[in-house]
Amino acid sequence: MSEVIMMKIGIIGGGSIGLLYAFYLNKQHEVTLYVRSDEQKDIISLEGIFLNKKENRRNERIHVEYIHNWKGQDEITFVAVKEYHLDTLLATLSIHTKTLFIFLQNGMGHLEKLERLKNQQVYIGTVEHGALKVNKNEVNHTGLGVTKLAPLTENAEPIQLSNVMANSEDFPFMLYQNYEDIMLKKLVANAVINPLTAILKIRNGLLIEDPSYFKVFKILFTEVTAALSIKDSQEIEAYVVSICRKTAHNQSSMFKDIVEGRKTEVDAIVGYCLTQANKNQESVPLLTSCYFMIKGMEKKGEKD
Amino acid sequence: MSEVIMMKIGIIGGGSIGLLYAFYLNKQHEVTLYVRSDEQKDIISLEGIFLNKKENRRNERIHVEYIHNWKGQDEITFVAVKEYHLDTLLATLSIHTKTLFIFLQNGMGHLEKLERLKNQQVYIGTVEHGALKVNKNEVNHTGLGVTKLAPLTENAEPIQLSNVMANSEDFPFMLYQNYEDIMLKKLVANAVINPLTAILKIRNGLLIEDPSYFKVFKILFTEVTAALSIKDSQEIEAYVVSICRKTAHNQSSMFKDIVEGRKTEVDAIVGYCLTQANKNQESVPLLTSCYFMIKGMEKKGEKD
Repeated sequence: MSEVIMMKIGIIGGGSIGLLYAFYLNKQHEVTLYVRSDEQKDIISLEGIFLNKKENRRNERIHVEYIHNWKGQDEITFVAVKEYHLDTLLATLSIHTKTLFIFLQNGMGHLEKLERLKNQQVYIGTVEHGALKVNKNEVNHTGLGVTKLAPLTENAEPIQLSNVMANSEDFPFMLYQNYEDIMLKKLVANAVINPLTAILKIRNGLLIEDPSYFKVFKILFTEVTAALSIKDSQEIEAYVVSICRKTAHNQSSMFKDIVEGRKTEVDAIVGYCLTQANKNQESVPLLTSCYFMIKGMEKKGEKD
Repeated sequence: MSEVIMMKIGIIGGGSIGLLYAFYLNKQHEVTLYVRSDEQKDIISLEGIFLNKKENRRNERIHVEYIHNWKGQDEITFVAVKEYHLDTLLATLSIHTKTLFIFLQNGMGHLEKLERLKNQQVYIGTVEHGALKVNKNEVNHTGLGVTKLAPLTENAEPIQLSNVMANSEDFPFMLYQNYEDIMLKKLVANAVINPLTAILKIRNGLLIEDPSYFKVFKILFTEVTAALSIKDSQEIEAYVVSICRKTAHNQSSMFKDIVEGRKTEVDAIVGYCLTQANKNQESVPLLTSCYFMIKGMEKKGEKD
């Protein structure tokens, strides 16, 4: 293993992904986690972050700050907030040009928004880890995956990245040339697994284990790939099935969001696919129905 | 009001519909209710049937028998079992030619099965009442509706029927020439309302009250009418919407079946529409998905 240079790394967002990355990257780097609430800041300052992986429970002391105190001083900044929280954040991010950004949002809805950062160094990341936030400073690492990175902007140079990527064997990073390649597969997986598991209230594995549900999986998969003009879909189908298998016992993020009455990422994921379907003049009745079912379920959460 | 002649009426099946019809018809006729379980037979013998309508609770003493003791001695026999229970029953029904049958099943899947009774007097009935079975001898009449009747077989003469139809003002019957006319509207309503409410776990009214859910309603309605080759669908859409409005606070029968882990009527309702779509070479991805979602949910009920 080559020598790893310690970097200053900022992680914006204290959700399951923010906690997971802060924990793993803090082992070899100087991490600051930026969070919104007093409550989360206090407990992480006091206790650090707990990570549970199978029977193993570990603790890591992490420097924690308020999001509004982020000043672009970190060499690398991971942005781990939900897509619909980016809007308020981007004004601040756009004035700090020294840091290299890595955006970890689901879907592809945020790409347009990131136009604002076109003169900065921006990487897109897709997260294939399973992570479940247990409480404000505790996360379960439920599925070991990989983080795939690809440059979004032209001036993004991967020099600092090598230090992150060499980080550790149990938290691998992979570098790609084309962000669309890595995002598209992940988008299809999200667009199929998330709405169906949220509507049916089932864990991911049941989508492929139950022959009836797998029929619905197939119909939706066909519509999603048509929406995105994906011609050669066989390899992607195998990928989506493999994600279901690897995360068989997990609840998808959209399922959890619905159960806990939170806003979901349906616009960034399913809404983005519908926009593409519209552009490509593809009729996608099941995908459209999934979108509106989730929209209705979100409202129900607000009312209850 | 003309004079009503008392008839011997048999009602096969002690579900919500069986209890409702037994209660109302027993006021002016000699009703025998045929049930399957010892438990239900005993409690109805002992206590009669309770019917709740708004704040009003009433009781009616009813003659009760085991289904296997039905011998075709009644002048009119209402068959109020679920479609998937008909198979075992039809062998017995087919050997008794004296009685006039009225079948009250949902969907249109049973029509083919009733071919066995083509030399008998058979009427088809559609039930637009809201009825909720509270326990083995108690039913809530949650929505006042109408029973629509039409002859299925050629030798069905409505002479005896007039006595049933004059029965009472608070339990109206209407007679039609063509069974397809009355069944088709009811089938469309069932095929749209039942699966969506069962999948989304919502009461009927929310399908038209929530703009997001109403979008899904529209997509499914379009597929169902295409499947059934219904050209002029405007009037039927108004009818389905009116059913949602009238039964706004009710749970659909399929929703209740799923919640209580029972087999649903998805084959008779949605399955029948899919067969027709196949014959008419119509692509119905949402309807197909609804079918398999319900099938998967039924299995889940069995496992839990």
